[in-house]
Amino acid sequence: MTTRVGQGLLIVYTGNGKGKTTAALGLLWRALGAGLRVCVIQFVKSERGRWGETLLAERLGVEWHAMGRGFVCDPAHQAEDAGLAREGWALAREKISSRDYDVVLLDEFTYPLAFGWLDREQVVGWLMTERPRSVHVVITGRSAPAELIAAADLVTEMVAIKHPYDAGIRAQAGIEF
Amino acid sequence: MTTRVGQGLLIVYTGNGKGKTTAALGLLWRALGAGLRVCVIQFVKSERGRWGETLLAERLGVEWHAMGRGFVCDPAHQAEDAGLAREGWALAREKISSRDYDVVLLDEFTYPLAFGWLDREQVVGWLMTERPRSVHVVITGRSAPAELIAAADLVTEMVAIKHPYDAGIRAQAGIEF
Repeated sequence: MTTRVGQGLLIVYTGNGKGKTTAALGLLWRALGAGLRVCVIQFVKSERGRWGETLLAERLGVEWHAMGRGFVCDPAHQAEDAGLAREGWALAREKISSRDYDVVLLDEFTYPLAFGWLDREQVVGWLMTERPRSVHVVITGRSAPAELIAAADLVTEMVAIKHPYDAGIRAQAGIEF
Repeated sequence: MTTRVGQGLLIVYTGNGKGKTTAALGLLWRALGAGLRVCVIQFVKSERGRWGETLLAERLGVEWHAMGRGFVCDPAHQAEDAGLAREGWALAREKISSRDYDVVLLDEFTYPLAFGWLDREQVVGWLMTERPRSVHVVITGRSAPAELIAAADLVTEMVAIKHPYDAGIRAQAGIEF
């Protein structure tokens, strides 16, 4: 067994439970604490959203790009969504290749892959063969495609056991978004 | 169905997968971004550990108490571990009751419950009936007891699908601890 040290990991947080983006933010927390350089590219989520997550990122000086239109999945806007996803992926490759970052988070990146807006094999192939070996890439979102799971070093599935919406409690700022 | 707004949630991240403490840190990230006041009490983990997580917490001025001896579970030290857990739980009640915090994280708190160092029914009973209604409490750790899961508003189980240790990659500072 060979031990690879300083190898950038491909990390995937997937599943239907809460906590995928949250876990990725926690990973950024640790990475920043350890002095690593991080960059976030959010797919699907809109720039207009002023979430707790972006507010602390600003305070910490974390580079953060929101490339989506929002959570809506509307067939009428599919061409636009696909275009934004391609733009986001081009930006992701640029940031990963730049060697300016130790950790690059591609938040909600499974959706463009699952919806077929990006070619899965090309994306996974690039991540495995073209990205600098030392760069950690973290990908979140439901329905991570099999190609991505096969390629990833660390995959955690979040399973919802209980959710407060069930009990009639509304999502709360600072806690769930 | 009644909608309870401003209700503090009891949130549990459990399971054998990576990402429980990580998700809790991400929740703190959001909470801090939204201007909420947070406090962390770490059970089991030792004060001597200088993890990436505590370094950013210091930088952010987050109150952080480490109450354990480390990860080791040694029968010879059970009395000491149990004592530290009781001390930690007393501190937790004090912080939660103080109303000085909107979110209190009890990291690795399932272990003292699972090992029987604390009385589960008393602990869960206190969280449900004695804690100020507005305070969010977040609990992490493997083997969350059934009483806790029954009482919680939000429970997410982290399931390990793939782990880099399997491939001979060592845990890396800033990423996994």
